[in-house]
Amino acid sequence: MDVYFDNSASTKVSEKAIEIMLKTMRDDYANTSGKHIKSVEAESYVKDAADIIAKTLKVKKGEIIFTSGGTESNNMALIGGAMSRKRYGKHIIISGIEHPAVYRPAEFLTEQGFELSVLPVNSEGQVDLELLKSTLRDDTVLVSVMYVNNEIGAIEPVEEISKIIKAENKDILFHVDAIQAYTKLRINPKSQGIDMLSASGHKFHGPKGVGFLYVDSNVKINPIIFGGGHQRGMRSGTLNTTGIAGMGVAAKEAYDNFDERINKISDLKYYLMDELEKTEGAVLNTGRGENFAPQIISVSFEDIRAEVLLHALEDRGICVSSGSACSSNHPGISGTLKAIGVREDLLDATIRISLSELNNKEEADYFIKNLKELLPLLRKFVRK
Amino acid sequence: MDVYFDNSASTKVSEKAIEIMLKTMRDDYANTSGKHIKSVEAESYVKDAADIIAKTLKVKKGEIIFTSGGTESNNMALIGGAMSRKRYGKHIIISGIEHPAVYRPAEFLTEQGFELSVLPVNSEGQVDLELLKSTLRDDTVLVSVMYVNNEIGAIEPVEEISKIIKAENKDILFHVDAIQAYTKLRINPKSQGIDMLSASGHKFHGPKGVGFLYVDSNVKINPIIFGGGHQRGMRSGTLNTTGIAGMGVAAKEAYDNFDERINKISDLKYYLMDELEKTEGAVLNTGRGENFAPQIISVSFEDIRAEVLLHALEDRGICVSSGSACSSNHPGISGTLKAIGVREDLLDATIRISLSELNNKEEADYFIKNLKELLPLLRKFVRK
Repeated sequence: MDVYFDNSASTKVSEKAIEIMLKTMRDDYANTSGKHIKSVEAESYVKDAADIIAKTLKVKKGEIIFTSGGTESNNMALIGGAMSRKRYGKHIIISGIEHPAVYRPAEFLTEQGFELSVLPVNSEGQVDLELLKSTLRDDTVLVSVMYVNNEIGAIEPVEEISKIIKAENKDILFHVDAIQAYTKLRINPKSQGIDMLSASGHKFHGPKGVGFLYVDSNVKINPIIFGGGHQRGMRSGTLNTTGIAGMGVAAKEAYDNFDERINKISDLKYYLMDELEKTEGAVLNTGRGENFAPQIISVSFEDIRAEVLLHALEDRGICVSSGSACSSNHPGISGTLKAIGVREDLLDATIRISLSELNNKEEADYFIKNLKELLPLLRKFVRK
Repeated sequence: MDVYFDNSASTKVSEKAIEIMLKTMRDDYANTSGKHIKSVEAESYVKDAADIIAKTLKVKKGEIIFTSGGTESNNMALIGGAMSRKRYGKHIIISGIEHPAVYRPAEFLTEQGFELSVLPVNSEGQVDLELLKSTLRDDTVLVSVMYVNNEIGAIEPVEEISKIIKAENKDILFHVDAIQAYTKLRINPKSQGIDMLSASGHKFHGPKGVGFLYVDSNVKINPIIFGGGHQRGMRSGTLNTTGIAGMGVAAKEAYDNFDERINKISDLKYYLMDELEKTEGAVLNTGRGENFAPQIISVSFEDIRAEVLLHALEDRGICVSSGSACSSNHPGISGTLKAIGVREDLLDATIRISLSELNNKEEADYFIKNLKELLPLLRKFVRK
């Protein structure tokens, strides 16, 4: 049996998404920037996708800027956002559990003269709101906090964060990395006070190589990629009609079917958590309830190296992740796990199980059965 | 009959490219950054594509950096290249007929303290080599010249340009925008002295949303997108296995079948040029011979507005472009046509016919027949 429990790394592309992508490649392959009918036809895919995504967020379709994926969206928000405000101030704030696609651009900004504050989080991975308040300065121009943490599934209180920021100064840009949140939570940037929001197509059964950045129409940020002036001048480059159309259809499927889908994922998460809690030497880093997303479980196993367990599971056809898959050349020890105070000996003993609606209870049972067989074996032969 | 003569804007995706893309979406959809077998399988698509593309250029596969397309490749080369050398100097040089994806990043660099020299071109669109020599300075760090101009098909003497640059200072980075050249010419960066070379998948029957930048292994440029440290740290972000695999297959098809394909396109170009030369009031901006690429014809029609002709042709099922399709929000008057000295009254009377191996003589005849019918009608009713 093949069990794919690495959906927060990437997902299988939906057949409906593939169907529309094929149309853009076989029939409606023109460049949207042309002036003839085939360009108009190509552009309709972009308009439709923008319309779908805008509706899922209750925003205007002109507020959706298409990018090459989550990393670019985050870079655009951080660098483009901060650069657009640099005459107002040079202070930016991020949380201590951001993805490299946020903290690396933030580090780059410090080389450009910005000052960076990094907010610690509590044992559930949540930003300390009082500390946020005291960290804000007169010259703060941008705050970026992820919505759902990619390693442990912690949900940040973005609405409360926004209220604190905007009470201090409504011109501070608030960016939310929603790459693990979009399609897993209902998000409403307007009512939640979010100025910019990043998402990535391949995290929700859309294709790779495409994402979007929601940018409130009252906000104008600098581009980081320059050229023909596409997309309100904020992101030049031939529009990737194929990826955009596929992502749009995947977003529609996800939100049309939201409750049923999320309930299924969530039930499976709790089922697995129940089983893991009964497993000797297993320590859950993910909690229950509203502070955690439905699709992610982080779990550590005493006296087991994550990588050894990962490959043992792989031999049984089961794919999970050790830490986050996104930091390809800096695997090391997860920043998030340290930040939430995971015991030193468990830091490299942690795996991430990430679910989608394509998973089922049979797979969960197969995983648990194999895990229970493997743990004693590995503990016996692979003493740390 | 439907005739698509806008292949320099975008192309139909090849069925073989689609085939491999489907595999990456349905079966091998994992994130290449994971540590399990499905990630290894996903990564094999990237390795294969890098291998194919490297072979077409006679370079090493580690020298191919995948991007979201030509615009990003050019931005990365210009901004990342210049920024990596800023302590050595602040002078950059481009030609006067570059695409906005080159000249806009160059303009951005001037805001960052760089000085920009723009080289004029002759009536065939070629950079003046003597002028290049005298424009080079002690503090020049980067020169960027396109290989094939997107509007008129002019081929720049990149090898001679490199020789002049490298004789002055071998550390000056030489970037070539080969977006209209790759798969149309045989390119050999090592023997031609090219340090960086941009290409875009959708210009040669690969998918949209993917391109590459060749970066010589002796060259290290700054990233413009920061994150997990993928691709030698030069371009972070989950690898778009789908797009990359599709582009790789399209590149293989193009070069496996190079001579036959280029001869077909070239014959069609000359056939159309012969017919256009016999057409009253038609003025060709594209020449014959080795200074021009096989796929592009720029032609002006006296007393006709390009946009009117374009829509009249469109009514007969024929798609051509007016100027370049890439400058979506700044259509205006083409910089290239002005730069090569096209008569003032012909600047907005110019269309671009751009061919691929999917076009044929029957389509050319249909185009010429309709053009000859339309020109007198349009001249009669749509006096300027």
